[in-house]
Amino acid sequence: MATQWLQEKSWLDVEEYLKKDDRIIIPVGSTEQHGCFAALGTDTYVASTLAEDASDKTGVLVTPPVWYGWSPHHLARPGTVSVRAEVLIELLSDMIESLASHGFKKFVVINGHRIVNISWMQIAAERAQRENQVKVAIFDPAFMSKEISKELGFGPIGHAEEIEISHMLYRYPELVDIEKAKDNPKKDEPLYHLDPHDPRDTLCYVPATMEDMLGTYEATGDTVGGCPTQSSADKGKKYHDHVVGRLVQVLDMLKD
Amino acid sequence: MATQWLQEKSWLDVEEYLKKDDRIIIPVGSTEQHGCFAALGTDTYVASTLAEDASDKTGVLVTPPVWYGWSPHHLARPGTVSVRAEVLIELLSDMIESLASHGFKKFVVINGHRIVNISWMQIAAERAQRENQVKVAIFDPAFMSKEISKELGFGPIGHAEEIEISHMLYRYPELVDIEKAKDNPKKDEPLYHLDPHDPRDTLCYVPATMEDMLGTYEATGDTVGGCPTQSSADKGKKYHDHVVGRLVQVLDMLKD
Amino acid sequence: MATQWLQEKSWLDVEEYLKKDDRIIIPVGSTEQHGCFAALGTDTYVASTLAEDASDKTGVLVTPPVWYGWSPHHLARPGTVSVRAEVLIELLSDMIESLASHGFKKFVVINGHRIVNISWMQIAAERAQRENQVKVAIFDPAFMSKEISKELGFGPIGHAEEIEISHMLYRYPELVDIEKAKDNPKKDEPLYHLDPHDPRDTLCYVPATMEDMLGTYEATGDTVGGCPTQSSADKGKKYHDHVVGRLVQVLDMLKD
Amino acid sequence: MATQWLQEKSWLDVEEYLKKDDRIIIPVGSTEQHGCFAALGTDTYVASTLAEDASDKTGVLVTPPVWYGWSPHHLARPGTVSVRAEVLIELLSDMIESLASHGFKKFVVINGHRIVNISWMQIAAERAQRENQVKVAIFDPAFMSKEISKELGFGPIGHAEEIEISHMLYRYPELVDIEKAKDNPKKDEPLYHLDPHDPRDTLCYVPATMEDMLGTYEATGDTVGGCPTQSSADKGKKYHDHVVGRLVQVLDMLKD
Amino acid sequence: MATQWLQEKSWLDVEEYLKKDDRIIIPVGSTEQHGCFAALGTDTYVASTLAEDASDKTGVLVTPPVWYGWSPHHLARPGTVSVRAEVLIELLSDMIESLASHGFKKFVVINGHRIVNISWMQIAAERAQRENQVKVAIFDPAFMSKEISKELGFGPIGHAEEIEISHMLYRYPELVDIEKAKDNPKKDEPLYHLDPHDPRDTLCYVPATMEDMLGTYEATGDTVGGCPTQSSADKGKKYHDHVVGRLVQVLDMLKD
Amino acid sequence: MATQWLQEKSWLDVEEYLKKDDRIIIPVGSTEQHGCFAALGTDTYVASTLAEDASDKTGVLVTPPVWYGWSPHHLARPGTVSVRAEVLIELLSDMIESLASHGFKKFVVINGHRIVNISWMQIAAERAQRENQVKVAIFDPAFMSKEISKELGFGPIGHAEEIEISHMLYRYPELVDIEKAKDNPKKDEPLYHLDPHDPRDTLCYVPATMEDMLGTYEATGDTVGGCPTQSSADKGKKYHDHVVGRLVQVLDMLKD
Repeated sequence: MATQWLQEKSWLDVEEYLKKDDRIIIPVGSTEQHGCFAALGTDTYVASTLAEDASDKTGVLVTPPVWYGWSPHHLARPGTVSVRAEVLIELLSDMIESLASHGFKKFVVINGHRIVNISWMQIAAERAQRENQVKVAIFDPAFMSKEISKELGFGPIGHAEEIEISHMLYRYPELVDIEKAKDNPKKDEPLYHLDPHDPRDTLCYVPATMEDMLGTYEATGDTVGGCPTQSSADKGKKYHDHVVGRLVQVLDMLKD
Repeated sequence: MATQWLQEKSWLDVEEYLKKDDRIIIPVGSTEQHGCFAALGTDTYVASTLAEDASDKTGVLVTPPVWYGWSPHHLARPGTVSVRAEVLIELLSDMIESLASHGFKKFVVINGHRIVNISWMQIAAERAQRENQVKVAIFDPAFMSKEISKELGFGPIGHAEEIEISHMLYRYPELVDIEKAKDNPKKDEPLYHLDPHDPRDTLCYVPATMEDMLGTYEATGDTVGGCPTQSSADKGKKYHDHVVGRLVQVLDMLKD
Repeated sequence: MATQWLQEKSWLDVEEYLKKDDRIIIPVGSTEQHGCFAALGTDTYVASTLAEDASDKTGVLVTPPVWYGWSPHHLARPGTVSVRAEVLIELLSDMIESLASHGFKKFVVINGHRIVNISWMQIAAERAQRENQVKVAIFDPAFMSKEISKELGFGPIGHAEEIEISHMLYRYPELVDIEKAKDNPKKDEPLYHLDPHDPRDTLCYVPATMEDMLGTYEATGDTVGGCPTQSSADKGKKYHDHVVGRLVQVLDMLKD
Repeated sequence: MATQWLQEKSWLDVEEYLKKDDRIIIPVGSTEQHGCFAALGTDTYVASTLAEDASDKTGVLVTPPVWYGWSPHHLARPGTVSVRAEVLIELLSDMIESLASHGFKKFVVINGHRIVNISWMQIAAERAQRENQVKVAIFDPAFMSKEISKELGFGPIGHAEEIEISHMLYRYPELVDIEKAKDNPKKDEPLYHLDPHDPRDTLCYVPATMEDMLGTYEATGDTVGGCPTQSSADKGKKYHDHVVGRLVQVLDMLKD
Repeated sequence: MATQWLQEKSWLDVEEYLKKDDRIIIPVGSTEQHGCFAALGTDTYVASTLAEDASDKTGVLVTPPVWYGWSPHHLARPGTVSVRAEVLIELLSDMIESLASHGFKKFVVINGHRIVNISWMQIAAERAQRENQVKVAIFDPAFMSKEISKELGFGPIGHAEEIEISHMLYRYPELVDIEKAKDNPKKDEPLYHLDPHDPRDTLCYVPATMEDMLGTYEATGDTVGGCPTQSSADKGKKYHDHVVGRLVQVLDMLKD
Repeated sequence: MATQWLQEKSWLDVEEYLKKDDRIIIPVGSTEQHGCFAALGTDTYVASTLAEDASDKTGVLVTPPVWYGWSPHHLARPGTVSVRAEVLIELLSDMIESLASHGFKKFVVINGHRIVNISWMQIAAERAQRENQVKVAIFDPAFMSKEISKELGFGPIGHAEEIEISHMLYRYPELVDIEKAKDNPKKDEPLYHLDPHDPRDTLCYVPATMEDMLGTYEATGDTVGGCPTQSSADKGKKYHDHVVGRLVQVLDMLKD
């Protein structure tokens, strides 16, 4: 089955769809630097490709992607577009309210931008659920690959590291120029571990300041946190299949 | 030359680009009903395809499209997503502010959603220009085809009429099922003429109420304003080439 | 019949009025520079005088004028007061909501400030119609004089040009010191024609930046766009009568 | 000397004015019910007539009046227009910011709407002073007539009572139909005394609810709090002269 | 009876309480400089201690205190925390809306921060009453001690003066280091008298600018307006008992 | 050393403090139902007691607690006060901005309300860091007890479960009526595990809807998620000491 992109349908198609299903997927990413070797759109591609494959398997509709996220800390490199979290809350709320008015009742918001986007999505999701009597699930690949990540030998989640680069190499190899990648292994900071696998005590995530970001960049000149050179399309495939499987599972759970 | 989509570039590519150019195109559309025979994404496809061809000819960068516009009056048909004008003002402002911080100085916002989106774009553009010392041009195909439209024998601008459907038939024929189209010629209202060609006195545009929309739909069951059956890919090509030519002309003007 | 100004009525008068009519006129203007020879209040006087004469002929109530508009680009000359478009949206929304709560159902907002005010009025009008189940028409003299303007030999719409100055000379001659006026004919810009009569392709209006405004001023020292010296009270009378006629026509249409 | 209304000046006049003075008066009122016998615009007329006479005596510029205030509790009678306090804060802030950008440094905001408008004016005034390095004085006739009121034998401040009606009878007798007035003496409430003369302990003012208002109206059918039948143009003149004197005194204080 | 602090209760206790009472007290203060000899929390302690004693006598529930108020003019001394009035309006509105949803119907907001907090409280109280069908009373000690103040020989209300310091000496002597206090008697300003006892004509309160504050500080180096050295725990007790008595009286009035 | 509560200090004390330290702790909790046997203020008590003990050991200043959090899902039981996340973002931003203006540079926000408050704190913290050039750490006991929790045999984090109740039994035994507690063990939901220790794949947290909450309550009539009967003051002490230790460690890290 082909991906069920909402933008390719007519209203009549949607009317038909709503007679038998009330689920819809909203892919949200970002347009932000991902190292000198990977595409600015990486986070949105990640969200979209997961949505596409899960849609293929389930027939669930997918809205056009939200290409812009909250990326204040990545403005240090050109091409990054950051929208305030406060604005994104309103944007997602309006999207869900519109679709809820037509009868959609279960929303899976896929977050390709990891921990940064989660905060504002939670606020939007709560409001949307309360005001529209719908169910909103926030599906984040980083939280849905805790189990597979160790198996694949991935290091901790950073930025443009082997996890998302492997994923991109599998799905969009033309958007990665791996030859240019240099590793910048994440230093272990005391009491600050962002990876959801990490069993140690930790402070909560706060987006880095511009100063901190520039400090991080000094080491390599690039803007990586992790080891992209250890990426492979093969690991990317295993990761992708696992996360798509999880997404299908969530969609199935929402069906009932 | 291929389209210069920002999302496919790395920050390093953008850094290189900014050494020789400071222009960027932002395509904005909508996801809203376009009759039972045409894609909900029509307005965004229209904005994107113009951006692509002008980018091919000039090498100017294009941001990922904004798929969502202000469409309160089209919520009467499923699949339509409407974001409040007040939210879209903030979204576009943040996008321009982000890119201005990197050195982009000239922005062409392509509006695929016609007169509805113009109001909030004007408010965002004024703020963006004032706060970021940049130039923002709002490029609307309806206002850039005043000269060609008469030549092609198009009727007045409506919704899902022969103008945008011809354009879609030329560029995205797979997203139009023209067999299903029925005409609903726009009735001539006294003192209310939205077509920018119309030389007669007129009230200003206000988006229709849901009641008015439903009244309009009664005639045909569909949600068309105009004569889509008179569309043709051939007219679409002439229209497209004219508007792309105008877009290239605007980009050239901004260069200096 | 005398003008039916709301501010001169008691609530009892309004209660009586609502038994037989549900229309009301809201004149909105600006307080902004109009050349060294014309009053800062020109736009509000224009809106008010049209409202007054239409009220005389129809008995329709008129609210007190909104003296302040969106004029960021005119702050370059002292005395100009600019209120953010975002604030004016809320102001007009509250005004209509208040009056709708009493039974007013049809609102004609007269815009004396031309294309600048239209954007925010559209956003307010849409919200007001949707939330209060009323009808809001935006009546702009520039769009209601497309037919007469050519006849009178007026040049394109600019600022403090022969159109509004003729109007003022007819209605408020004491507020124009025509001896001080100097012409500054609008230069024909490629692909940017604000006059709604103009049949050529055009970009959409965006308020000028302060830099652009100051550039425009250099030529004459004054802040005019057009040829005020070609104004006459006689032309102003013809223009006024035409536009008042249109306003009466709109009020009549709303009656039914 | 005639009233120096800003709206009647050109920018050149204002430029000249700013060479010798940096004070400006902003009259703010309301459009709200004032009993079945007095004009809805009473509060704005009150503010404007004080401004006019003080301007005559001092030559200080006066902006066009703000005709709309915060009147949620008066919506119970038709013709009342209430703008949210939150919106009025933004409106006044923008007005002062605009004028401050031209060199105005001292603002006297005249409040014709008494205690209701004071709250939002304080918030706007504080912001305006802090952000624009100007001085903003809030001049309220009720607080500037504490000394004269007892002398004139006025009862406590209410609504459409002998204080404002005497004032109107003196300045705008054509806007009062005193024959229709009925008294509704304010009942003495325990621990709630709004009159600033009142020496007794009191709760702070909160605008009445619609229910409370309707309760108040039951007694007479009208919407009065106080004794309008005891008004006289003569007392109005004494009151007016006293308050104008105070306003001139404040303007003089600000000069230095 | 002990103070009925909400934070010490379980939801079951509140459920029981609501079966017999629907009143609740909300103490609001500030965290702002009160001279070099008194605690930054003075205003919140004042509001809380009044609430506690009235709760003891009536059994009425008390919410946890709001420790932060609107104090832009006191930021000139360290430790002061100022929250924008616009934010505090939303905060108090949400608090009342939450409690109203459970059945609380009468709210007494105690303002320990005097005239500064009243403005935003009025706006929040009006909205809360209108949207939740509740009664909100604003209880300010300065307005509830007009009668006792003269008796106790207190001077005019200022800042950290003998009124609030006497009160603190009686209730929280450990939070005042009276040895360090120096007097800075309030100068009598023409036409600007903030004390609600003052029978003279006056402008309305606007929070001082930073410049004005720093000017005031120059005299003594400290930040006092008034004569703290004339404070005494004995006067504080009489003041406290009077105001608690008034609070009990208000609570009793609301009962019926 | 005693706790260094800001509200008990004078501005002079703070001035002295800032000569040698620039750190400050902000305890934030909630007022929300915690079962029929525990205090509504539990989350704020938890944040405050951790702050107090860390202050005792380090001398770091502590601001007065923010007693209100984002608790829309707990409004189902009386006494709960929920403030919108959007409002809390502004509140915390203003608090940090005020203190930063005096020279505070390192802020530790203690979150007693667990995962719900984290979202808005992240948005506020990012803004505060960017606009004020300060460092803001978000310290959440749940994330700082991942290591000790297993050791103590605690079950997963829920609501009013053995973790927070043990903590309360140790520090505020008078605020827990453990006799009334009934267990309601958290059911294991597929792909939704909120406990940060949980190594399994999971959806992200979204506050429950009122319907879901009421469903959860049906089982026991109370509003518990977990096993409060297994709480003990002894375990609470070990937990408390561990988390206080972590807080001291974070404060030490920030010193340098």
